[in-house]
Formats: sequence, C-alpha cells, structure tokens
Amino acid sequence: MAYNLLTGKKGIIFGALNEMSIAWKVAEKAVEEGAQVVLSNTPMALRMGDTNQLAEKLNSLVVPCDATEVDDIENLIKEAMDHFGGKFDFILHSIGMSPNVRKGRHYSDLDYNFLAKTLDISAVSFHKVIQTARKNDALNEWGSILGLSYVAAQRTFYGYNDMADAKSLLESIARSFGYIYGREKNVRINTISQSPTQTTAGQGVKGFDKLVDFSERMSPLGNASADDCANYCVVMFSDLTKKVTMQNLFHDGGFSNMGMSLRAIEQYNKSFEYDKEHPFD
Amino acid sequence: MAYNLLTGKKGIIFGALNEMSIAWKVAEKAVEEGAQVVLSNTPMALRMGDTNQLAEKLNSLVVPCDATEVDDIENLIKEAMDHFGGKFDFILHSIGMSPNVRKGRHYSDLDYNFLAKTLDISAVSFHKVIQTARKNDALNEWGSILGLSYVAAQRTFYGYNDMADAKSLLESIARSFGYIYGREKNVRINTISQSPTQTTAGQGVKGFDKLVDFSERMSPLGNASADDCANYCVVMFSDLTKKVTMQNLFHDGGFSNMGMSLRAIEQYNKSFEYDKEHPFD
Amino acid sequence: MAYNLLTGKKGIIFGALNEMSIAWKVAEKAVEEGAQVVLSNTPMALRMGDTNQLAEKLNSLVVPCDATEVDDIENLIKEAMDHFGGKFDFILHSIGMSPNVRKGRHYSDLDYNFLAKTLDISAVSFHKVIQTARKNDALNEWGSILGLSYVAAQRTFYGYNDMADAKSLLESIARSFGYIYGREKNVRINTISQSPTQTTAGQGVKGFDKLVDFSERMSPLGNASADDCANYCVVMFSDLTKKVTMQNLFHDGGFSNMGMSLRAIEQYNKSFEYDKEHPFD
Amino acid sequence: MAYNLLTGKKGIIFGALNEMSIAWKVAEKAVEEGAQVVLSNTPMALRMGDTNQLAEKLNSLVVPCDATEVDDIENLIKEAMDHFGGKFDFILHSIGMSPNVRKGRHYSDLDYNFLAKTLDISAVSFHKVIQTARKNDALNEWGSILGLSYVAAQRTFYGYNDMADAKSLLESIARSFGYIYGREKNVRINTISQSPTQTTAGQGVKGFDKLVDFSERMSPLGNASADDCANYCVVMFSDLTKKVTMQNLFHDGGFSNMGMSLRAIEQYNKSFEYDKEHPFD
Repeated sequence: MAYNLLTGKKGIIFGALNEMSIAWKVAEKAVEEGAQVVLSNTPMALRMGDTNQLAEKLNSLVVPCDATEVDDIENLIKEAMDHFGGKFDFILHSIGMSPNVRKGRHYSDLDYNFLAKTLDISAVSFHKVIQTARKNDALNEWGSILGLSYVAAQRTFYGYNDMADAKSLLESIARSFGYIYGREKNVRINTISQSPTQTTAGQGVKGFDKLVDFSERMSPLGNASADDCANYCVVMFSDLTKKVTMQNLFHDGGFSNMGMSLRAIEQYNKSFEYDKEHPFD
Repeated sequence: MAYNLLTGKKGIIFGALNEMSIAWKVAEKAVEEGAQVVLSNTPMALRMGDTNQLAEKLNSLVVPCDATEVDDIENLIKEAMDHFGGKFDFILHSIGMSPNVRKGRHYSDLDYNFLAKTLDISAVSFHKVIQTARKNDALNEWGSILGLSYVAAQRTFYGYNDMADAKSLLESIARSFGYIYGREKNVRINTISQSPTQTTAGQGVKGFDKLVDFSERMSPLGNASADDCANYCVVMFSDLTKKVTMQNLFHDGGFSNMGMSLRAIEQYNKSFEYDKEHPFD
Repeated sequence: MAYNLLTGKKGIIFGALNEMSIAWKVAEKAVEEGAQVVLSNTPMALRMGDTNQLAEKLNSLVVPCDATEVDDIENLIKEAMDHFGGKFDFILHSIGMSPNVRKGRHYSDLDYNFLAKTLDISAVSFHKVIQTARKNDALNEWGSILGLSYVAAQRTFYGYNDMADAKSLLESIARSFGYIYGREKNVRINTISQSPTQTTAGQGVKGFDKLVDFSERMSPLGNASADDCANYCVVMFSDLTKKVTMQNLFHDGGFSNMGMSLRAIEQYNKSFEYDKEHPFD
Repeated sequence: MAYNLLTGKKGIIFGALNEMSIAWKVAEKAVEEGAQVVLSNTPMALRMGDTNQLAEKLNSLVVPCDATEVDDIENLIKEAMDHFGGKFDFILHSIGMSPNVRKGRHYSDLDYNFLAKTLDISAVSFHKVIQTARKNDALNEWGSILGLSYVAAQRTFYGYNDMADAKSLLESIARSFGYIYGREKNVRINTISQSPTQTTAGQGVKGFDKLVDFSERMSPLGNASADDCANYCVVMFSDLTKKVTMQNLFHDGGFSNMGMSLRAIEQYNKSFEYDKEHPFD
C-alpha cells in the first residue's frame, strides 16, 4: 500500500547490494512512495552485487562511488544533480565494513590501519557525503539525511568489535552536522538504530544467528525486518517528520529499552536443565 | 496535504481543550488522514473549552472522562467501541496538570496531596487508560498508543517543578506497559517529547516565554509547533512505524541533543554588555 | 582496610533491616571510615529485623520512622540533630516496597491504591526526607544524599513490575531536588544503580536468582555485592566527590552498558542443545 | 588532607603539561595519596611544558611517548614496569588535540587528514595504550584506567568541532575495551566527563570563557575544577570503586542533567533588556 509520501522528492541511496540489503528495500519503497532515486555503491560492490538490476527495475541511475573518496562523492553529487535537474531531498547512508572483523582480528589485537579504515568507511564517509552535499548546496530546504546504526553504539556486544566504535562515531557525526546543516538549511540528520538484520553485512558477524534469536525473544514486537526499516526510512524522508533531527531513532521492536523479557529468560533457563543433564561437560 | 495514512483507523484522543491544544491538532490531522476519532476530556474541561466545536467539525463523538477514574475510562472505552462498531487502533494521551504548580508551591515545599494528584493526573492516568483498554481487549493488533512528554523528564528545568517527575514516570510507564502490550498484541506504546509549546497548559509554567525563546535559539530547526507534532503523531499511529515501541521520541528541532548553539550564546553574551552598562544593578 | 574518609561526618541511614541489607553494610563501612550514624527504619521493620543489634555494635541511635510520614521524618531529623549536636552530612535512602509485587498483581492488573503506595514508599519518601531535612536546615554545606536504584528504571525487566516506575520517579527526584539543594547549600543528591543484590527485598522478585545469574554472566566484573556498594556509598559521602550531583551512578560490574557478553550467550546457546534433545517439550 | 587511598599503587599519567593541566593535579594528588607515578607526554610537550619540574617534585620518572605510536607506548610500558619493578595499577589518559580546531577549519569544511589525526590523537590513542598494556600484561588485577571526556560527546556545542566526535569515540572505546579487559583481568575502564576547565587545551576552543560562564550558572554546584577532578580520579583509581566499569562518569556540578537553571536564564534575560536599549543593533 502506497501513500505518495515522497511524491516529487529525489534522493541518493548508498549501499543497495542485493535484495537482502536494507538500502535495497528503502530504494524500492521510496520509489513506490513517489520518489526518484539515484543508487550508489563502490565499483567492487557494483560488480559483485545486483544494484544494476534494481536500477533497471526502479528506472534509476547508478553512479559508482567509494564514499571514502571526496572526489568520488563530488562526482556522484554532480551526476545526481544533473540527473534530477537540480537539488534533491534525501540521502540514505547504509555503508559499513570492518577489515578487523573480516580478518578475524580480536578487539584486543586490532590492526590500527584496519581500524582507521573501519572508521573511515563506516563513519567518516557519512561526514564526507554530508560535507560534499552541503558544499554543492545539493539539498533542498528541509531535506533529510539518514545513517544506519546499531544499539552496539551504546552497549557492548561481544564480537561486534570496532564496528561498535564506528557506529558511536557515526551517531556523533549525525548530531554534530545536524546542528550545522539544520541551522542553515533546515536539513535534518538522524540515524536509525535497527534490529540485527539478516543482510550480507550482518552475516559477517560471529554468532550472528544466535544474537538474532536472543534479540527476537527480548523484543516485545520481535526484530524489525529490512522491510519494516524501509517504511521507517520513508517516514523520516517525508514532510511529516520535519522537526526531528540529531536523533538516534531506535527501530527494533523495543529491544533497546528491554533489560530482560520473560521469553528470553525462559529460553535461557533451559540451559541450566542442559547443564544438569550434562554434568561432565 | 493528506496521504490517507490512517484510512480505516479509529482512535481516542484525550485533551483537545481548544485550538491551541496539541491534541486538537492531532484530532484534526488524524481525521484529515482518514481516521475516525472519539474525543475525551474531563467534564470541567468540556465546559470550559471548545471540544464540542471540534467534535462537530470532525463529526466525532465526545465522551466525558476523568482519566484518573477507572470507571470513567471503562465507560469511555465502551462508548467508543459502540461508536466504532468494535475495536480501535490508537490512543493519544495528552493530559497533565500539577496542583503544586497551579498553587505556586515551590519544589522544596511541595504539598504531598498535590504531588499525588500531579502523578495521578499526569502519569498514572496513562497506565489506567492502557490497563482498561487492554482488559476490554479494545485495541486491534498493531495498535499505537502515544503520551506527550517533555525533555524535563531527563534534565531539570527550573520552575517545571513536580511535572518533571510526573513526565519521568509517564515515560517509564510507556516502557513497562509497552513490553506487556507489545508481546501480547503487538500494540506499541511510545511518548513524544515535544518542544515547549504555547498551549493553555504550557502557559501556566513560570517564565515560559523566555524558555521558549531559549529553546528556539538552541534548536537548529527551531521549536516544533503543535501542527508539527500532529504530523509526527499521525506517523506514529500509521502502519509505517509498526516496530517502534517503548521509546521516548524527541520532537524538538534538535534541542535535546544540543549543549550550546551559536545563536543562543550570542544572545546570552549580550547580557554581559547589559551588565557593563548597568554596573550598579 | 579503612582510610578515615568520613572522619567527623555524621549521617542518617534508612533501611538496615538485617546483615544482608545494603544499608547495613553502608552503616558498618561508614562507621569504619570514621562516621557517626543514626539508623532508621519503620516500627514494623525494627520489630522484624536486626537493626537494634547493628545499632549496638556501631554505638548508634535508632529512631523509628515511616518515611512516608512527614511527621515521623520531622521527628527523626530532630532526634538526629539532638544526638549529633547539630547538623549532619549525609543520608542514605534504601527504601522500597511494592504491594502489587507482594500481592502478585501483574503489571497489567495493578491495584491503583497499591501503586500509589509503591510510589509513595519507594520514591516520594525520598522527596519527603529531603524536603524535611532542608526545611530544618539539617545538612551541612557539601552534604551528600544517596538513593538506591536499579537499571530497571531505564530498561524493562519482566516481573519487576511497578517498582521500575518507582525507580524512574526516584531518579527524577534526585535530579529535581539536586538542582534546588545544590544551588542553595551545595548539597549533592545522587542515586546509585546497583546490581541485583541478594537482600530480603531482592528475594521478593519473581525468578530473581535466574536474573542474578544472567546479570553475573553479562557483567564483565560480575555483579556488585552489598559490600562493594557500601564502599561506593562511602566514596560518594566523602569530600572527594563534591562536584558529582544529579547523577544516576551505575554500580554493576558493567552490566548497564552491556548488550551481550560471550559468557551469557554461551550459556544461552546451551538452551538450544536442550531443545534438540527434548523435541517434544 | 590525605587518606592513603593509593598506598602501594603505581600508575602512568599522560598529559601533565603544566600546573593548569588536569593530569598535573591528578599526578600530585595520586602521589599525596600514596601512589608512585610515571609521567608521560610527547617529546614536543616535554620541551614546551613543565612536566620535568613536576617529575622532580614528585620524584617520578618521565618517559617521552607519542601515544599514537604503538612502539612508543610499548617502550613506555616497559620502562614503567622496569621502574616500578613489575606490574602497575592505573593509567590516566588525558590526551586530546584537533588540528581542525587549531587551524580554524569549520566543522562543515573539515580537512580529512586532520580529522584522522584528531581521532587518532584524542581517541584511538586510548585504545593503543590499553591494547599495549594488555599485551604486556602490565596491569594488576582490579587495575583502573581513566580517560577524560566532555559532555559534547553526547550533545552538540558550537565550536567544539570534531573533538565532539573524538570524545564519542573515546567513550565507546572505554565501553568496548572495558568489557574485554574486565572479563579477563577485572581491569575497569571508565571516562570522566569533566566540566569545561581552564587548561591550555581548553583555552584553544572559540568562545571558551563564555561557555565556562554559562556552564557555571547552569550547574547547581558550579563547574568542577581541575583539583576537584583530581580527587575524583583518585577515587576511581582506589579499591573503593572496583565494580564501576564501562561508564562515562559526569563530574560537572550537575551540568549534564540540567535543562535550564534560574541563574542562567536570569542572566540570559538581561540580553533582552540590552536589545530594548539598542534597537538598531
């Protein structure tokens, strides 16, 4: 069901790799709601993933861009403005990667070149995109910029490693730049802190499926899916949320404000039955 | 501009006193978006205010109800279900009052009967409404309940007095009941923490206009108006935010995450010029 | 090992029921560190518990007081000032009780008279104690007031019921009154958010031992004990923490900032082994 | 007045440039409380500042170290362990610098090489120090590590620029590593979020004196001084706070939980008198 929430709006969406990607769902939903979108990803991701198929389906432009490279972003912004015939209205930044996680480096044995990359790719790129957009005066008044985050930015999850630090940095950049871009052009900047989601990125995290299970049982509404997230992003791009800025918005079925649910503890308690039955483990 | 976000949805709105009220704007906007609403207020407020005019305009039912009285709420819920022909989908709780504030009792000289009333009217009534709705199985699956809060629930504002404590309690009730109602019926419960708003209630607070000015200069997007708030409430009642629950959602132009803006400090700094010119004050 | 951190200081300690009580440990530790204390509890608790034995051991005065009764508090303050020969320096409020929990009323079926009692006993009593102390100008400059809280004030734990709401209210009162008493007399007011602790009060909560286990495995330093808490309270009463006020201080081995530990998820994961071995459960 | 809180303890203190430095006060206080310390700073800072005088006074070793260089840290840790004759107990990280701030680059015109430096110097160095200490098994069980932060990590202050993002990152590292080092060796890691303090570093921030004034009027206890902070650090290094970890501890006279004080708004309100008297400004 569509509401035409984004009729006439235009935006750039980073990170739609394949149909599991949150960004993919956001792109589909945004178009369904009346928007035009430009899709962007790294040249590597464009080769490995299915972004071009999505572009075809949505009749949208694809522009390769490594979001850690200001020149690339500059080019993307210009191509997007050409394509749209002027300024646009929204940006989704769904970009994150940790070489330390990929290479199996423990948080107590980080490679610092990798850490610098994690921060650059997953957080500083958000600043670069916003700074470049602003320098090109690319966004219409009351535009909306979103980054995707995770509750690990506030609380420690084993195995999430330096991505936790990157997400904290990302959320801080949303606040810092939200102030600047808001006071000047009424552009709002927020992050959405999403449930753990079965995407290609999510699957890279150790023990991810068990964490998803725990999160599901803890959250009164269950985990939010990529489709749910797309709905929420559309709402945050629409004109109905104009005064929400500098926020980290939890979109997680309630997880972030749960300490312990009955459903999770009941599952947990079975582990003690297991222990009783396996006393020599 | 309407999007039919609430087509087919029905809800109860508490606290639409006059056209300055946030609840008034929410009722108008909800109807504009396709909802049917039942309006409720205390018998006293119904006499003093303009709720009946709004009801006429929106073609809606008015049911008197003191939200501290479970019997009244019981009756309201039943009348609403009769009127709607069954279950409904959303509730807005926009109710708050402090006899201590009204009678000018300082926070260090509270009357404890008054404090009990402040808490009962402004926070516990939220629990009573929800408990009664749930006992009557009045809400459809994926229903949405909202309360209105203020940042004073987290940070102390001189003069806001025991309302700050009441708002903390309100936000806690949203979390506690959000867990219960969510796991059972997928009903979500949130509070919206709104900018200081020039309503009849807001105007009762000492030095309110100066606080509004400061808040305006601190917030990169300026204060959120009652109309802005109505838009945000509609979004939170819609099917696009189904997985958001147990949250306190700041709707304040960025105020909550500001420490100091250039605009506010520049105004503040003029006070020192004043001091220089009036050395004997 | 003692440091004489509280040499010459005097204070009132509420809630030392028996040697499992946090307040008991705080009283012992405070005296060890050089303080004089007055112990207080309800007449009922004084009959049921061992407060008088502690008083004998610590050579301290016991004054019965129902902290929901301003007259009782008034009397306590006066007796304490007589005993101490003037003003004193610190107060520990370790008081909490929910008739709804005791009577097994579910959060979705609260008795509202009980809820009013929960709030009055567990939170408003904190305000009453502080207001009465201030009206009697009972505290020395740079005095220190502490309340005991739990992380359920921020996040929902099944079964903690209306105590969660009471703790939120308690923490708000600490902020609100911390502002007033701080600006006037430099008295600081904080709450300590303590690990779940095996006290007589703690044991009343449903499934408490399992929650303690989970909390232990989640917290990198393990749960904080009542003895640990006593050390922290002493520090917060000392002159070394004069500028800390209006805070909720987590004292919990790290629990509050954990999302998931390896140790907790490993235990959790055994539950799935149990499920595999008991497919028909 | 000394309590012998740190008798027998040993630690490394980074960042004692001159007698205005917080680290300077912490070193003095730690020694007063019975500790031995090793002082460290960059070679440049050692030339420009007075660290050597402090070392003489405290009879402590000085080891040059650029905390962004793992080799330097490695060397420092080894020299400290030689000097102490084995493991030590605490570390203070008081290091922060933004080339963007120094060179007057606005937050919307950041130089990204500078940003990388800001993050490396002010936040990642904290990780490097901890990782290197842990790899060398340099800390005793129940050791304590502190970093210094500022409320700008949570809320935006104009002019604080990319240091805000660096402080967010710093606080996240404290959580992430606090989990790892805590579960293994019971080492606790926290940050102290200190009032704006008139140090050499603080003075570099634009309009710093006005911010200090506002902060002073907002905080019920006034701003915390460097001496106050030293007391709090000593407490956090002592055995009385063993179960506090992964926390950001506000040490700010209450500022962090204030929304508006009477004293600050009264000063603010004079600015409107100024405006009335200067209508043509």
